[in-house]
Amino acid sequence: MRKITKVEIITRASKLEDLKEALNAIGVQGMTVSQVYGCGLQKGQTEVYRGRQYAVNLVPKVKIETVICEVPVEKVLETARKALQTGHIGDGKIFVYDVENAMRIRTGTMGDKAITDDEA
Amino acid sequence: MRKITKVEIITRASKLEDLKEALNAIGVQGMTVSQVYGCGLQKGQTEVYRGRQYAVNLVPKVKIETVICEVPVEKVLETARKALQTGHIGDGKIFVYDVENAMRIRTGTMGDKAITDDEA
Amino acid sequence: MRKITKVEIITRASKLEDLKEALNAIGVQGMTVSQVYGCGLQKGQTEVYRGRQYAVNLVPKVKIETVICEVPVEKVLETARKALQTGHIGDGKIFVYDVENAMRIRTGTMGDKAITDDEA
Ligand SMILES: Nc1ncnc2c1ncn2[C@@H]1O[C@H](COP(=O)(O)OP(=O)(O)OP(=O)(O)O)[C@@H](O)[C@H]1O
Ligand SMILES: Nc1ncnc2c1ncn2[C@@H]1O[C@H](COP(=O)(O)OP(=O)(O)OP(=O)(O)O)[C@@H](O)[C@H]1O
Ligand SMILES: Nc1ncnc2c1ncn2[C@@H]1O[C@H](COP(=O)(O)OP(=O)(O)OP(=O)(O)O)[C@@H](O)[C@H]1O
Ligand SMILES: [Mg+2]
Ligand SMILES: [Mg+2]
Ligand SMILES: [Mg+2]
Repeated sequence: MRKITKVEIITRASKLEDLKEALNAIGVQGMTVSQVYGCGLQKGQTEVYRGRQYAVNLVPKVKIETVICEVPVEKVLETARKALQTGHIGDGKIFVYDVENAMRIRTGTMGDKAITDDEA
Repeated sequence: MRKITKVEIITRASKLEDLKEALNAIGVQGMTVSQVYGCGLQKGQTEVYRGRQYAVNLVPKVKIETVICEVPVEKVLETARKALQTGHIGDGKIFVYDVENAMRIRTGTMGDKAITDDEA
Repeated sequence: MRKITKVEIITRASKLEDLKEALNAIGVQGMTVSQVYGCGLQKGQTEVYRGRQYAVNLVPKVKIETVICEVPVEKVLETARKALQTGHIGDGKIFVYDVENAMRIRTGTMGDKAITDDEA
């Protein structure tokens, strides 16, 4: 079984479509999106969201999780960075985790094949 | 300390009650549920949600996370598969992760005992 | 690269502000908050939420995720416990995970520096 990895991206909601397209273009098709609230490492600086200035830092963000194994992690990270980087405070964070196993429920397929093969 | 594992299940919201009951029946009592939006490996196929056809694939789903240690991972996977498998596109995915440690906040209990013992 | 760790805290929504302040005070500034629904290990007991008694156990909770590396995990756990412990059923759970890598998207900084340095 090849290594399975989860890449978790927390970024501006306005960037979701760009990110999704960029990831699709390198072969990442499965992803899970959640609405979250975040605060980063601002040290007193403020972040602008929909024209409003947030001081206390619990800003609406979007979390994108994608579990991958065929597409290299570095490629996913680089592609996400290119799609999301504006150079402004609040561009977001990416976290990478090991995944022990996976299952496609429809077929019961386990391991890396649960992510890569589409036996539909 | 016994190994602690997180099982993350992303599936149709309509299956949440069935899954919860099936997991409870094998001794899994703790779980955390979130509303998410997902896309899978459809290669142009579409998925039906509440009678509507989704092409672009960001379909409302439910994510169930359960951290376990006494009940074997295989038993949780098999039970979830039985409760969730319809054979149709979009049945969902399961991802398995290692958990380094756990705490029950009420008692401060750490490790596998935070998950299994109920000193209430 | 120093070890990077994710601490995931699931607790009462009413405790979010206290927890945020307590974590900020020990140098934890980045965190991501989600609204979730949870059930714990109640064995027939019920939990009170906004004056209502929940039997079936899918109670609204808040999930706080913070990825750390400079502040010791033990300090984060102890601080969270102090902020959240009431001694009543439903105080919550903490789960600890290993993080393989991290990136601050604005700068492209990888590894532990993505979490700790603020080159703003
Ligand atoms: N250490 C962390 N743990 C968990 N989530 C984090 C952490 N740091 C940031 N986040 C999440 O990522 C979102 C975006 O973070 P943000 O881009 O502001 O990071 P930052 O370190 O402050 O970088 P920048 O200086 O570019 O703003 C936050 O709103 C929060 O949801
Ligand atoms: N690789 C992945 N990474 C993260 N989340 C995923 C991934 N694949 C699927 N998901 C999540 O699981 C949900 C259900 O996926 P789905 O069942 O459609 O998977 P699939 O691989 O397309 O299988 P099927 O062919 O049976 O539809 C998706 O909507 C998405 O939220
Ligand atoms: N094993 C678990 N896996 C995933 N999430 C869990 C687990 N146990 C608890 N949770 C989450 O944590 C929340 C709070 O749990 P809770 O404090 O009720 O745990 P507990 O074990 O029942 O402890 P207590 O006896 O103090 O109530 C739950 O509502 C659920 O969201
Ligand atoms: Mg920031
Ligand atoms: Mg699918
Ligand atoms: Mg409980």
